[in-house]
Amino acid sequence: MKTPSTVGIVGGGQLAVMMIEAARRLGLETRILASSPDEVAARRWSDPELGDARDLDDLRRFASTCDVITFDHELVNSFALAILEDEGVIVRPGASALAVATDKHRQLLLFSERKLPLPETVIVHDADEAIEAARTFTDGAVLKAATGGYDGRGVLLHPDDETIRKWYPVRRTPVLVQPLLAIDAECAVQLVRAPNGQIVTYPVVRTVQANGMCSVVHVPSGLSREIEEDAVSIACLIAEAIGVIGVLAVEFFISGGRLLLNEIAARPHNSGHITLESSRTSQFENHMRAVAGHPLGATDLSVPAAAMINIVGTCDGPHSFGILPPDVAVHLYGKAPRPGRKLGHITAVDSDVDRAIERATVGLELMMKGEVVS
Amino acid sequence: MKTPSTVGIVGGGQLAVMMIEAARRLGLETRILASSPDEVAARRWSDPELGDARDLDDLRRFASTCDVITFDHELVNSFALAILEDEGVIVRPGASALAVATDKHRQLLLFSERKLPLPETVIVHDADEAIEAARTFTDGAVLKAATGGYDGRGVLLHPDDETIRKWYPVRRTPVLVQPLLAIDAECAVQLVRAPNGQIVTYPVVRTVQANGMCSVVHVPSGLSREIEEDAVSIACLIAEAIGVIGVLAVEFFISGGRLLLNEIAARPHNSGHITLESSRTSQFENHMRAVAGHPLGATDLSVPAAAMINIVGTCDGPHSFGILPPDVAVHLYGKAPRPGRKLGHITAVDSDVDRAIERATVGLELMMKGEVVS
Repeated sequence: MKTPSTVGIVGGGQLAVMMIEAARRLGLETRILASSPDEVAARRWSDPELGDARDLDDLRRFASTCDVITFDHELVNSFALAILEDEGVIVRPGASALAVATDKHRQLLLFSERKLPLPETVIVHDADEAIEAARTFTDGAVLKAATGGYDGRGVLLHPDDETIRKWYPVRRTPVLVQPLLAIDAECAVQLVRAPNGQIVTYPVVRTVQANGMCSVVHVPSGLSREIEEDAVSIACLIAEAIGVIGVLAVEFFISGGRLLLNEIAARPHNSGHITLESSRTSQFENHMRAVAGHPLGATDLSVPAAAMINIVGTCDGPHSFGILPPDVAVHLYGKAPRPGRKLGHITAVDSDVDRAIERATVGLELMMKGEVVS
Repeated sequence: MKTPSTVGIVGGGQLAVMMIEAARRLGLETRILASSPDEVAARRWSDPELGDARDLDDLRRFASTCDVITFDHELVNSFALAILEDEGVIVRPGASALAVATDKHRQLLLFSERKLPLPETVIVHDADEAIEAARTFTDGAVLKAATGGYDGRGVLLHPDDETIRKWYPVRRTPVLVQPLLAIDAECAVQLVRAPNGQIVTYPVVRTVQANGMCSVVHVPSGLSREIEEDAVSIACLIAEAIGVIGVLAVEFFISGGRLLLNEIAARPHNSGHITLESSRTSQFENHMRAVAGHPLGATDLSVPAAAMINIVGTCDGPHSFGILPPDVAVHLYGKAPRPGRKLGHITAVDSDVDRAIERATVGLELMMKGEVVS
């Protein structure tokens, strides 16, 4: 196969922006399919294509202008992608990999079949089943919609019966009911798989969640070597099983000292943003290398320790950031603020991981406080 | 003063591209004034303004859409910029700083006045004077046009009388005649000066020239501490003297163990590309921070050692790069190849500077060799 030189990215958010910048340095052309000219990648780069990421005709038209297509989000239509693959379009990570990565029910089936460590899970299809299943978990339950959820959306923590009844009618997908676990820690593995099957893995990161969103990520993880090695092996096994091409992010809980699978994403992921500063090759560059069929870049740590913290909107409407801290890497996405919306992230590198976390935290406070010194 | 939020960049080359990417992460808007829609920054980003960087009206129209203007090249008209400053346009590095930085004759006068270490220099205004001056340097002479030269253009090494006569009529500026020195080494200092006078300096880099272009840059420089400290002090003195805002690059020769000033540039510079991987804040980000009035970022080394090597075109017309090496940072500029044209650069980081240089060199060979493995 000729090496693809024009990579089409479906979606125009911040992941697309960071992929486009990585691709540019590698000499690759990029195109985007955005749902609106206001998406951040559509506003900044010339020549965006507008269309619906789930519509077969829009995808087909877009793909006809690219050598390969990939994705900045998971709100995709894997049926349409499978049809395009049959028509000869190169889709990476691949329609079947996306079908699993975007469906927690299919993930569960795969993970169970491979005997991978999972929280106890009941699959339900209506509110009555959900209420019954939730009651069996005496310490509380978590409900997760099989599809359409991200950043805590589609997840219901420790709900009462009435909340389940209200929530359920809007879910059109199976729902996973799991016990509310006592979680010791969370961690994530990023890996990248090339078309020839080569896999490179990034050092395990520890993730600290707040409101269902990952808020702090740091490396080294501080977890035991055994836990780290297990996490990496499981991630590689999943990558092979679904035949992903590009980045795969695998998120884990650690509960009672045991590693348990949480969920996966087949694209550059928030838990991998830290690689922009912490590793020789970022997840964005390696995703583009994989998608375009180039050798994957080195993933080893280039700094002793790093910590990333998300910048999350606190109010509606335009607000300007205050002091740009001098000792952290600032990444703003150019998005209009909304409460709970990810507007950017900050990464601090240091010789010590606790100092890196501290510095990132102070940096965030400075930015959110405002008032610019000129 | 309100902090500028839209930075206009005059010029649309690779420096503009790298500035735009740095600005984006800081949440700054950027606009460019390109001479042609084919310039790399004009092709990739939406909404480029087309115009002549030396034309007062074009500059005025462009500046009216920006909060501050800065530059990706030195082919500027400092008279026009001074007029715009009088009209209230914020120009950074500033018209007077650019007037010095783009004129070797004015640099010479300034450096002499400040008693800074310089090669012996004769200023000439016609071919006869040049020939006479060249003859006084018995080991050979170098002629440098005071303005319009970069990457070895406008420089004549060890010419005979006839070559001087042919070359001279096309020079409209004074010419500096200097002895052809036995050069032990070359080095450069990058610094950044903020509107409030704050200066941050990057670690001294050693530069290795080939054909008048800097071809390898590495850090640490391997030079003595005394030489490094002298170079940094001289650079800071020049920055204050010309009142630069943004990046100032100061290049030195070392001859007979003595530091001698070569030339300066008041913009991000090829010798500072290495800061993208070697320092916590790149020269591009710090230039944008300075230009937009934000606190300057930390400039200390984030890796033990790094080496940068330029990718220079060897032929005309399109050619595709071969293997993208997995263990170096590749930066391609998206420019059409031409012999001698800078098409990109590669940076290797390592615990050891010699290994970094070796790795960058091998990486370049792989890229130039071609044939992609997929």
